[in-house]
Amino acid sequence: MEPRVSLITLGVADLGRAQVFYEALGWRRSGASVAGEVAFYQAGGLALALWSWRSLAADAGLPEEGGGFRRVALAHNVADRADVDRLLAEAAAAGAVITKLAQDSPHFVGRSGYFADPDGHLWEVAWNPAFALGPDGALTLPP
Amino acid sequence: MEPRVSLITLGVADLGRAQVFYEALGWRRSGASVAGEVAFYQAGGLALALWSWRSLAADAGLPEEGGGFRRVALAHNVADRADVDRLLAEAAAAGAVITKLAQDSPHFVGRSGYFADPDGHLWEVAWNPAFALGPDGALTLPP
Repeated sequence: MEPRVSLITLGVADLGRAQVFYEALGWRRSGASVAGEVAFYQAGGLALALWSWRSLAADAGLPEEGGGFRRVALAHNVADRADVDRLLAEAAAAGAVITKLAQDSPHFVGRSGYFADPDGHLWEVAWNPAFALGPDGALTLPP
Repeated sequence: MEPRVSLITLGVADLGRAQVFYEALGWRRSGASVAGEVAFYQAGGLALALWSWRSLAADAGLPEEGGGFRRVALAHNVADRADVDRLLAEAAAAGAVITKLAQDSPHFVGRSGYFADPDGHLWEVAWNPAFALGPDGALTLPP
């Protein structure tokens, strides 16, 4: 695993309210956003995503309550589909709990899974060719 | 507020265990770390920090339990001391809850405060001249 963070997803209760807040602070919503579903913001070499916290829990394979879910996830994007499975196996070998095995996205071309670190912090390992990765690992949202 | 994340702090119960985990995955601890206190990892243009979750709660001005604390905080570092107060005021005007008013660090030259976004996600706004900010806002830990 390279030491980098590709994306930070903040789980929100009201997407519109969250968008208004971040945009009032000067963040500019990316064209990669899906109205009413998910908002993406380019932040240097990573992206911030605002997404329903219930959807995030389901995506991560965790119950909404009682399973330690914190409504936030970091993501580590990889350049190759096979790296998703390989990195999840590495994380498991290092002591992570795999909360969701790698699977192809039902919504777009991509593959991802989730692990929780020893303190329960969630990481998604994702291959998503629509989000470009530079040679230095920086993630760039589509225009 | 510029759209960037300078640092992600993961609150941990056992710093040694967390270090072993991330270092097994290939992350390299920065010389800016303080043994037994805090570990920093350079991750592209930002840093990941591992810190006692109890210390993080106290630093953020939140109770350890029952106040919505999620054991994680994002940080937005600024180049000028006065920007800390200015950005916290901007966040409050946009609807954030200030969980800790700006104050000078008792430990080093620096100043910071915290706000919670409308969903309770914590942001520290920090001026810390020991952590260099590039013209593009990228944060570089000391060697």
